[in-house]
Amino acid sequence: MGIRVAVAGASGYAGGELLRLLAGHPEFDLVAATAHSQAGAHVTAVHPQLAGLDLTLSATDAASLSDADLVFLALPHGQSAAVAAQLPESVKIVDLGADFRLRDAALWERYYGGAHAGTWTYGLPELPGRRELIKASDRVANTGCYAATITLALAPLIAAGLADPADVVVVASSGTSGAGRSAKVNLLASEVMGDLSPYKVGAHQHVPEIKQATGATSLSMTPVLAPMPRGILATVTARRLTGGDPREVLAAAYADEPFVHVLPEGSWPHTAATSGSNSCHLQATVDVDSGRLIVVSALDNLGKGAAGQAVQCANLMSGLPETMGLSVFGVAP
Amino acid sequence: MGIRVAVAGASGYAGGELLRLLAGHPEFDLVAATAHSQAGAHVTAVHPQLAGLDLTLSATDAASLSDADLVFLALPHGQSAAVAAQLPESVKIVDLGADFRLRDAALWERYYGGAHAGTWTYGLPELPGRRELIKASDRVANTGCYAATITLALAPLIAAGLADPADVVVVASSGTSGAGRSAKVNLLASEVMGDLSPYKVGAHQHVPEIKQATGATSLSMTPVLAPMPRGILATVTARRLTGGDPREVLAAAYADEPFVHVLPEGSWPHTAATSGSNSCHLQATVDVDSGRLIVVSALDNLGKGAAGQAVQCANLMSGLPETMGLSVFGVAP
Amino acid sequence: MGIRVAVAGASGYAGGELLRLLAGHPEFDLVAATAHSQAGAHVTAVHPQLAGLDLTLSATDAASLSDADLVFLALPHGQSAAVAAQLPESVKIVDLGADFRLRDAALWERYYGGAHAGTWTYGLPELPGRRELIKASDRVANTGCYAATITLALAPLIAAGLADPADVVVVASSGTSGAGRSAKVNLLASEVMGDLSPYKVGAHQHVPEIKQATGATSLSMTPVLAPMPRGILATVTARRLTGGDPREVLAAAYADEPFVHVLPEGSWPHTAATSGSNSCHLQATVDVDSGRLIVVSALDNLGKGAAGQAVQCANLMSGLPETMGLSVFGVAP
Amino acid sequence: MGIRVAVAGASGYAGGELLRLLAGHPEFDLVAATAHSQAGAHVTAVHPQLAGLDLTLSATDAASLSDADLVFLALPHGQSAAVAAQLPESVKIVDLGADFRLRDAALWERYYGGAHAGTWTYGLPELPGRRELIKASDRVANTGCYAATITLALAPLIAAGLADPADVVVVASSGTSGAGRSAKVNLLASEVMGDLSPYKVGAHQHVPEIKQATGATSLSMTPVLAPMPRGILATVTARRLTGGDPREVLAAAYADEPFVHVLPEGSWPHTAATSGSNSCHLQATVDVDSGRLIVVSALDNLGKGAAGQAVQCANLMSGLPETMGLSVFGVAP
Repeated sequence: MGIRVAVAGASGYAGGELLRLLAGHPEFDLVAATAHSQAGAHVTAVHPQLAGLDLTLSATDAASLSDADLVFLALPHGQSAAVAAQLPESVKIVDLGADFRLRDAALWERYYGGAHAGTWTYGLPELPGRRELIKASDRVANTGCYAATITLALAPLIAAGLADPADVVVVASSGTSGAGRSAKVNLLASEVMGDLSPYKVGAHQHVPEIKQATGATSLSMTPVLAPMPRGILATVTARRLTGGDPREVLAAAYADEPFVHVLPEGSWPHTAATSGSNSCHLQATVDVDSGRLIVVSALDNLGKGAAGQAVQCANLMSGLPETMGLSVFGVAP
Repeated sequence: MGIRVAVAGASGYAGGELLRLLAGHPEFDLVAATAHSQAGAHVTAVHPQLAGLDLTLSATDAASLSDADLVFLALPHGQSAAVAAQLPESVKIVDLGADFRLRDAALWERYYGGAHAGTWTYGLPELPGRRELIKASDRVANTGCYAATITLALAPLIAAGLADPADVVVVASSGTSGAGRSAKVNLLASEVMGDLSPYKVGAHQHVPEIKQATGATSLSMTPVLAPMPRGILATVTARRLTGGDPREVLAAAYADEPFVHVLPEGSWPHTAATSGSNSCHLQATVDVDSGRLIVVSALDNLGKGAAGQAVQCANLMSGLPETMGLSVFGVAP
Repeated sequence: MGIRVAVAGASGYAGGELLRLLAGHPEFDLVAATAHSQAGAHVTAVHPQLAGLDLTLSATDAASLSDADLVFLALPHGQSAAVAAQLPESVKIVDLGADFRLRDAALWERYYGGAHAGTWTYGLPELPGRRELIKASDRVANTGCYAATITLALAPLIAAGLADPADVVVVASSGTSGAGRSAKVNLLASEVMGDLSPYKVGAHQHVPEIKQATGATSLSMTPVLAPMPRGILATVTARRLTGGDPREVLAAAYADEPFVHVLPEGSWPHTAATSGSNSCHLQATVDVDSGRLIVVSALDNLGKGAAGQAVQCANLMSGLPETMGLSVFGVAP
Repeated sequence: MGIRVAVAGASGYAGGELLRLLAGHPEFDLVAATAHSQAGAHVTAVHPQLAGLDLTLSATDAASLSDADLVFLALPHGQSAAVAAQLPESVKIVDLGADFRLRDAALWERYYGGAHAGTWTYGLPELPGRRELIKASDRVANTGCYAATITLALAPLIAAGLADPADVVVVASSGTSGAGRSAKVNLLASEVMGDLSPYKVGAHQHVPEIKQATGATSLSMTPVLAPMPRGILATVTARRLTGGDPREVLAAAYADEPFVHVLPEGSWPHTAATSGSNSCHLQATVDVDSGRLIVVSALDNLGKGAAGQAVQCANLMSGLPETMGLSVFGVAP
């Protein structure tokens, strides 16, 4: 018998991707999937891509979740703390929300509002030393999708002294599933197809998380909504401090990583190549005109940016092989 | 040690999907992947979604393929026969092309041109009695993507006497990967996005295959190119001969099938729900105004319509569980 | 001084397209644009593509509309009658809704619900004799977008005796703007991109309108939502009654029409070529296998399918050149 | 009788858009449209959106162009000089290619290769003093699409002393029509849909033009191919030198411009709102975390980025109203 897992918030996009990954996972047995307004619905009424899975969504309450060995929380930002507080200490938790990511309570309150719930182990296994921390943790705060994309690109270059942590400029475009499954006019297909639209320009709530994770001290980030369902492409530029080769630094940092691929020279990441996978693709160069470092990073916001990352952390927390149930390869075209 | 397999035509879209499926298959070991103009290239230069796979494409010749226990041919229509002729009889073959699908040589010559190469076991396991034939075959002609979509919708209704085989009208829209990976202006993103365009109206080469597989005797089929990379949606209508319920007929026909799902009443198939999977989704009704049967069928043209179907057949031919290495669930959104 | 016009329902997609066309019209002066929840908003907050137009939306009431010589009603189906009843007889009206299209009150009630409001002159100028009726009318019911697409393809073939009115099968795919600007989960970009999904299969509310306009007596129509913002592509098939050439019949019917183009032989309509225009593109053939007539029709659902058609009718009703302020040419790619 | 104009390179995307605009222009009479491999084809075989236009493409030679008062050259980069050299001095020319944009011959040779053809009046009327120069010129080099987008955003801020010309970072995404109408695998719909891909990272050939037009002295620009047919969205960031409000500076610079719109505070440009128009939308802010200036600029790469801009320049060169035949309003959704 395997490890018993549950998903809270199973009706959203990250929740659906979690169900898909868990259905194919050899060791995790799904014992509950909960939802709010969709409680009581058969899973295929909510996620038609899961036709063939016999599962009914239940209401999100402690009772239906406490039976699991490990719970994934895929709830809207700010709702995880209340659910987590009702679960026994013996139940491991991976939170896909932002609630427990930040160490600085003041920053939480400024960007998200409400009281800060606390700080859990930050769930990005490829950061130095972090894999062991995750293995030893019962509570893990999964990275945000933008933060995962940008941190994997930037953290090694700051750590190696190549990139100036005080001069970082990022423009990152996300597919629409990153905006969630809420019925808003600006997310309608009619509005999005054929369109690129920036949002929260000048003050995005993920900036504190990215600074905390990368060591950047000043960072301009402009997020853009792109006409595709999945994927994030981040262009990360920074003032170059020393003459090292940024590609070599990244290649060395991720040489043994199964999910982070520094592409062959001359190949640049693009989002479709990561779709449906848990991989992140990276490439770097030095700009001819400005001399700035440019790193481009691509991943699937629902994969390595959310559900895949969460399963990777859960594998580590459960003593399983880190790659179990996850795909290195994208579904393309 | 597993079963040794090879892919000829690995640089195309169906070839790339085969490589992805084989990389995750527990029993098939890929020993060769061949290409024409891309021979010598690393696989990630051709299929960036396979970053992390260490494989170089070789030239398509008998020597590099003969070492395998089973060969997948994913070549342009008309090129399979020459390659197949050079392979030892002991090597099993699944041909994803049209070369060996038709029983009627005259129809082959009219629609495809050139000499008819012969007829192999038709590889659609869900047709009555066909699974056993495939298991017993060393040579299997994989279904075409349109034919798979339409046959699964129509064959049981004709067999049960509900649908008039002499009065069938089909309109089927396909994603662009169905048109292959050739650099043509009409397949450019600028031309396709935001556009629906019919093609080969009035005389599509897949009609004889569909008639042969379904038992239809007169069939109008209009194919449409749709602005999406994957997926086929077929609307199949036929004059109704008897008063039976078409949904019940389909549900009975596929009750034990792992990959063919008749959706709950009121739910209609859509392509995205099958993307990346080997599933086909079906629903049927009787039109209020005309009394015609309407069946809608959706699948992934590269999955159940090509590479997934081929792996399913190869599993059967190799004595493996039919579902091995294949996903029931789609990657959505 | 020009002719004073007003738009009720200016916040929707058809309303926005009307405002765009009217802003470029040499003789129509927009004196009011009304909305419901968006009343009081500047037009660019609702339609950012109209940046540069100085206009504030007002509330939809008789007072703000009565000042016009001609009013366009672009309201949800069922809401036009109430507004129309409050307008003076001297104000001409073009209704883009379904309220006044059907002659048969029973059919209205069955498909739309509620009481039938009445029947106005049906606004498809290219039907025989209809142009003169529209010129003489003060109240015109604009065609539905599906009805316009299908009627232009089918009506001449039934009238000429080529097509069997009792055996018509249509599959028509529409871009998402046809579904309106309401915030529904199934219309989200994440759900629609990469997807084709049929809806209202077997009983679409536009069937009675299409039968009334074309003379068909039995018609199966399956509508499909396509991943593009604009455009309808209809594949219309019918049993062939006589040996005439369907393309010649259509070419003769529309020889003098500025907006209906029967394409050169071998060219098939596609939606992008009509985007932003008031044109409809047509092509026809006889199916090799079944002998059925196949006509493909493409137009812009917001252009010739809604706002453009409405302006064309308004031009006729106002004694202006029929093509004034309308573009024959599409915006592509 | 109007002004006689001709288009060389009419088979490409910019050429097609020119034909569309010229067909609706009240004063320009198209006397020739030339092409290379498509010479002899009817225009609708090449541009089906122009159905209804009776025009046959001729071969690109001086004879067929010399009959015009003004010639638009929409040829691949590097081919304009040879054609221009064969035209009489009395024929005015607007070149949409890059050949005559740069003042620095060495930069031309480094980025484009081949000999530098010379320098013509740079065709961006909204730059200070430039409108008068264009009016007085017989030879005008139209801006590049990226350069137009970025220059309109950045030039006033450098001129006003707000933006540090030595510290500019740009990420700009373009729709696929910007890559031209050549049949390349990487531009296939299957590759592009659902995908964002950067290209020419670290050394884009438009950087010298942008620096020349804006006054920037160091500029990092990363271009990204986006899954949409039209539109450019540029995120332009720069170190802030003084405390002025960037939005106010832009609003003052463009207060009287018909085609450049600084949006209301809080509204950010998005590409779809400019599609089919000659407008550019702008918004600016100061980044909370880094203090950098952020300007977002959107336009239609075929409109204000190419054909629209060219017509605007041609209007000025011909003594016509600058806005004649051009639309301020976008076609959306």
